[in-house]
Amino acid sequence: MAKIAILGYGTVGSGVFAVVTKNQDVVSKKAGEAVEVKRVLDLRDFPGDPVEPYLTHRFEDILEDEEIDVVVEVMSGINPAYSFSKQALEAGKSVVTSNKAVVAQHGPELIDAARAHGVSYLFEASVGGAIPIIRPLMTSLTADHITEVWGILNGTTNYILTEMAEKGTAFSDVLKDAQKLGYAEADPTADVEGHDACRKIAILSSLAYGKTVDFQQIPTEGITKITAEDIAYGKAMGCAIKLLGTSKKTTHGISAMVAPYFLPVSHPLASVNGVFNAIFVKGDMSGDTMYYGSGAGKLPTASAVTADIIDAVRQTAVFLDWDTSAKLPVETKDEVTVKAFVRVAYSDAEQAKKACNDLFGVVKFVQLESFGDEFGLVADGLTEAQLAKKAALLAQAPAITQVRNIIRMEE
Amino acid sequence: MAKIAILGYGTVGSGVFAVVTKNQDVVSKKAGEAVEVKRVLDLRDFPGDPVEPYLTHRFEDILEDEEIDVVVEVMSGINPAYSFSKQALEAGKSVVTSNKAVVAQHGPELIDAARAHGVSYLFEASVGGAIPIIRPLMTSLTADHITEVWGILNGTTNYILTEMAEKGTAFSDVLKDAQKLGYAEADPTADVEGHDACRKIAILSSLAYGKTVDFQQIPTEGITKITAEDIAYGKAMGCAIKLLGTSKKTTHGISAMVAPYFLPVSHPLASVNGVFNAIFVKGDMSGDTMYYGSGAGKLPTASAVTADIIDAVRQTAVFLDWDTSAKLPVETKDEVTVKAFVRVAYSDAEQAKKACNDLFGVVKFVQLESFGDEFGLVADGLTEAQLAKKAALLAQAPAITQVRNIIRMEE
Repeated sequence: MAKIAILGYGTVGSGVFAVVTKNQDVVSKKAGEAVEVKRVLDLRDFPGDPVEPYLTHRFEDILEDEEIDVVVEVMSGINPAYSFSKQALEAGKSVVTSNKAVVAQHGPELIDAARAHGVSYLFEASVGGAIPIIRPLMTSLTADHITEVWGILNGTTNYILTEMAEKGTAFSDVLKDAQKLGYAEADPTADVEGHDACRKIAILSSLAYGKTVDFQQIPTEGITKITAEDIAYGKAMGCAIKLLGTSKKTTHGISAMVAPYFLPVSHPLASVNGVFNAIFVKGDMSGDTMYYGSGAGKLPTASAVTADIIDAVRQTAVFLDWDTSAKLPVETKDEVTVKAFVRVAYSDAEQAKKACNDLFGVVKFVQLESFGDEFGLVADGLTEAQLAKKAALLAQAPAITQVRNIIRMEE
Repeated sequence: MAKIAILGYGTVGSGVFAVVTKNQDVVSKKAGEAVEVKRVLDLRDFPGDPVEPYLTHRFEDILEDEEIDVVVEVMSGINPAYSFSKQALEAGKSVVTSNKAVVAQHGPELIDAARAHGVSYLFEASVGGAIPIIRPLMTSLTADHITEVWGILNGTTNYILTEMAEKGTAFSDVLKDAQKLGYAEADPTADVEGHDACRKIAILSSLAYGKTVDFQQIPTEGITKITAEDIAYGKAMGCAIKLLGTSKKTTHGISAMVAPYFLPVSHPLASVNGVFNAIFVKGDMSGDTMYYGSGAGKLPTASAVTADIIDAVRQTAVFLDWDTSAKLPVETKDEVTVKAFVRVAYSDAEQAKKACNDLFGVVKFVQLESFGDEFGLVADGLTEAQLAKKAALLAQAPAITQVRNIIRMEE
């Protein structure tokens, strides 16, 4: 009999409680012994809820309980989640988490703590919800040098962009609906500004390339500036718009970015809609593989957490090929090159196009009649810094009245 | 130092030789020791090829060599692949294979032999080429009851159907091109008649549901009867056509089939094109997940084989949840229910539609003007046997001149 404790009885915590209870037959079979929740930590009380007999308000009740082998940290935010995780690992308990903020910020230290105490720190659910991605990276693509990992890593923003594309609705309206439906938080900043996707691509990159990638070094842009007009230009070019976390191996480190991207509709990621996530991996031998599933949600996320619990109980946790002492440099805005769509409003079309050609070289223009005096251009082979500088210069050109948006493009 | 032998220096065998040699750094790191090819069995000679020093024509040179721990069976066909595998396992060597025919026919017996001798029988590459699917099923979706597994399991037929859909070309013309390009074999029967996909869905079902599924019980239909006209009807209904292997859990067993299906274009599998494969899995907690990648090809398949070699060397092979002593019943044609599109030519439209409604209930009709005196109808909730019987009756109705095709539909 293996006994576990759950820290946090929110969406994921109550999901883990439900999965371990409801699928006890399969969980016990796979774990090789019965798995039972012994304690659940939450500051709140839940009168009448099945969790009631297990509830405690004191972390010490878990930390000091020698029967508890596995601690499931499904709180949110850094503290006290980080401190509780570290204490649990140092007390010889394995820790399983879905908390991408803690893994991105303190992952190397917590992996080290787990290794030092002969236990596991597992976080499959911190990236891509139910999607198996950490195990495939660590145990299936083992014959490959991974050269790229990127994808749709946030369900809230993918839901918003999908609704905007399908219904032509404005960002702010879709956001309000998403909040009503529970697909977006009351404070949606972490999702819509790309911070959540940034932490996830940092974790994935660290695992794919084997050295720590600092999420704070990844240029990150959200979807708040995307309009129905931008999406219409994308459609005209045969592209969908997706918030992507991207990361590609370079000679000395990686080129990484989080931003909304135009992606050809023929790309498998382009048809990943709604709250679904998908992760694309390129290996030098395996070629392109992709992993798709629910990026969030109570039971899907809990399913991934529970799979980690099973590994922790069986002590068959996968070897994490993550050298926690080594850092992988991320290209700065002066180094990372992009292909980008730039949307400009003009007072004089001929002069405006000349100004664009002067700045970006001879570029391709896209014009949609219904939008009046504006066009889009596609510029390639610029660094992020050059793109920003040229866009600023373009905004000052006499025939240009406004640079309306800049959207990166992926092929 | 781990020494391996490769049986068969064809496409996959030479790929494994290339991966183990070229990616020696990562393979050795992941295996925990250097991995070296000691012997390659092939009846042919390869003068001047890097394999030359390792070649042998005698299986005994491998079987009797105690230094060889892992035997890689990448031949094709049942014999002597099966017999060599069994002998190797009984001699205490792990066996890794990409041979779906052997796994589908003799898998349970070979898994038993491996278990009895404390070694591994591993076959990730037998399904979906480079796509990690067996490990995700066995190690990631462990908290779930799997209720469905289905997908595009054959690259040759997916390439043919994609070309037919994109270019409006006839099946026989695309097949000829595919043979020239090396995407189809000189004798394409196993691919185009669905036999290859049938073996793969049987293997996946056995793993997903934990009991042996007999591939011979799965109703199987190929793509040879699909025409450009059928594809046009699909497009008119918002559907792509894909050869699917399907398998869904029922109360007493599974409902399984291999056939060309109409699939809504919004479904993630619908945009899996060319030689790519993808596998869709439904779990009661994880929901829908999908796994996408190269379903065949020298290096992608070799990448999956080599990942299994690494597991065999590390002795960390995953626990296969496959009860080899239990059989899972497959619904017969009298039991399995389908939704189907039936295409009929008529001499009198009104009478023909009345005949269809009389036989199938009130159904939806699809008519494309350019095709003249024919229409399609969508019938739902019939068993395969009923569908065949009603189609035969329809063909005899006075106003109907021909039943041109029957294509199943998936949602």
